[in-house]
Amino acid sequence: MCELLAMSANTPTDLCFSFTGLARRGGEAGPHADGWGVAFYEGRGVRVFHDPGASASSRIAELVQTHPIKSEAAISHIRQANVGRISLENTHPFIRELWGRYWTFAHNGQLHGFAPRRGVYRPVGETDSEAVFCDLLNGIREAFDADTPDAQLIDAVVAACRNYARYGVINLLLSNGEWVFTFCTTRMCAITRRAPFGPARLRDADVTVDFEAETTPDDIVSVIATDPLTSDEQWDAYQPGEWRLWRKGEVVARGRETVPAHRHPAVGGSAVS
Amino acid sequence: MCELLAMSANTPTDLCFSFTGLARRGGEAGPHADGWGVAFYEGRGVRVFHDPGASASSRIAELVQTHPIKSEAAISHIRQANVGRISLENTHPFIRELWGRYWTFAHNGQLHGFAPRRGVYRPVGETDSEAVFCDLLNGIREAFDADTPDAQLIDAVVAACRNYARYGVINLLLSNGEWVFTFCTTRMCAITRRAPFGPARLRDADVTVDFEAETTPDDIVSVIATDPLTSDEQWDAYQPGEWRLWRKGEVVARGRETVPAHRHPAVGGSAVS
Repeated sequence: MCELLAMSANTPTDLCFSFTGLARRGGEAGPHADGWGVAFYEGRGVRVFHDPGASASSRIAELVQTHPIKSEAAISHIRQANVGRISLENTHPFIRELWGRYWTFAHNGQLHGFAPRRGVYRPVGETDSEAVFCDLLNGIREAFDADTPDAQLIDAVVAACRNYARYGVINLLLSNGEWVFTFCTTRMCAITRRAPFGPARLRDADVTVDFEAETTPDDIVSVIATDPLTSDEQWDAYQPGEWRLWRKGEVVARGRETVPAHRHPAVGGSAVS
Repeated sequence: MCELLAMSANTPTDLCFSFTGLARRGGEAGPHADGWGVAFYEGRGVRVFHDPGASASSRIAELVQTHPIKSEAAISHIRQANVGRISLENTHPFIRELWGRYWTFAHNGQLHGFAPRRGVYRPVGETDSEAVFCDLLNGIREAFDADTPDAQLIDAVVAACRNYARYGVINLLLSNGEWVFTFCTTRMCAITRRAPFGPARLRDADVTVDFEAETTPDDIVSVIATDPLTSDEQWDAYQPGEWRLWRKGEVVARGRETVPAHRHPAVGGSAVS
């Protein structure tokens, strides 16, 4: 399976610590050696790093781990390929512009028999993930416009996810820079850090951070991931079908859809991307 | 003014040497300290690095100078801001997907009174450059489809450039990964390197490269830039109104349009972006 990582914060925050944990799973502590990527929003702009190699040995991944890029919304993905060969164009997160904002998307899972609708957005690569992203944006563009309230947009995104879940596993991250939408059919968890901040230790690397030294008392920073990234904190697991909308570090809307039961593929087992 | 850099090659080639020369002009040997970016195509995929700071002191720019990313088509830009504040979303090159390919665009110049047409593509930032890019893609999307022959597309791009030139200076780079289109109203030059390869020395840094050690006899690599990047090679200057279409290191189509005369802004003078 692939692994997902997202961050939502009320102040520009770097992802160095969490990304260090994730990156070790890309070819070192885990089997996800088939590419990785990360998107950092800064205002309306977005910085995207993509690398079709293993994150554990990537010089670009090393830069992302050591060079603090501050963001209020970020999403990341490391890949174990299944549908679509290992290549740059098949590397998440995918990005498109809609209504003058950059939308980014990363997905863990695999769909069977899903036929995306045609529209303005077309996949560049061959993954089912990018096909889902284009389908989602084509649906949004057809039904709404730039002035549509977020609540209405999110209702439509949830309905689309419920439909995608009929075809297989869809754990996904979607952001337009304003918010981070998360949907889980099999595995996802989250943690919100706020004052009083304490230390935390990565599960996959001998790295400890003292958040108190890095934050102010007003900071609220949430991290969403496929599996907990730290060994000494309590992560909150999503239920199958659960979705949460994050903004400035907090859940601003949430719900749970009925989705078909899927076993989450074991790490090292039959791989899904 | 801003500075442009593009590469077209018949074999995947890195941009480390040329980008090192360009990056020095971003806040060290030149005044272009307001952001920089580069897009590298690898097959249908594209890797884009953006940084709103000065390239001369950017850790990400250092990575691009030292970590060889191999590409057959790349475009880059360093910025001295005029229209649009210094921010990530105003940093070139801009990118959009059209017909299942990523199109990238960088521009040097400033337009006055230009009103872009509305369409699918909308600017995220405030630069006239991104407005021109969206206008260009909206025009192409409306008039053609994915099966349109390149010659017909390029005719339309040239016609659009002729129109943009009525509003001011437009030196531009446009690529879809298959080709690199270049248009000059005031300043642009190019060099094609092929066997027998020799050494070359950067104008803006004490760096020499021996291309013979880095190439095979069949390699053809062309570099297009605002000003010559090396001091010991003969660069070929574009004429005002001249355009060239590059593919696999060679000019595959070219022409010259009549454009209004513009003085190219002096470095350090009244800045254009």
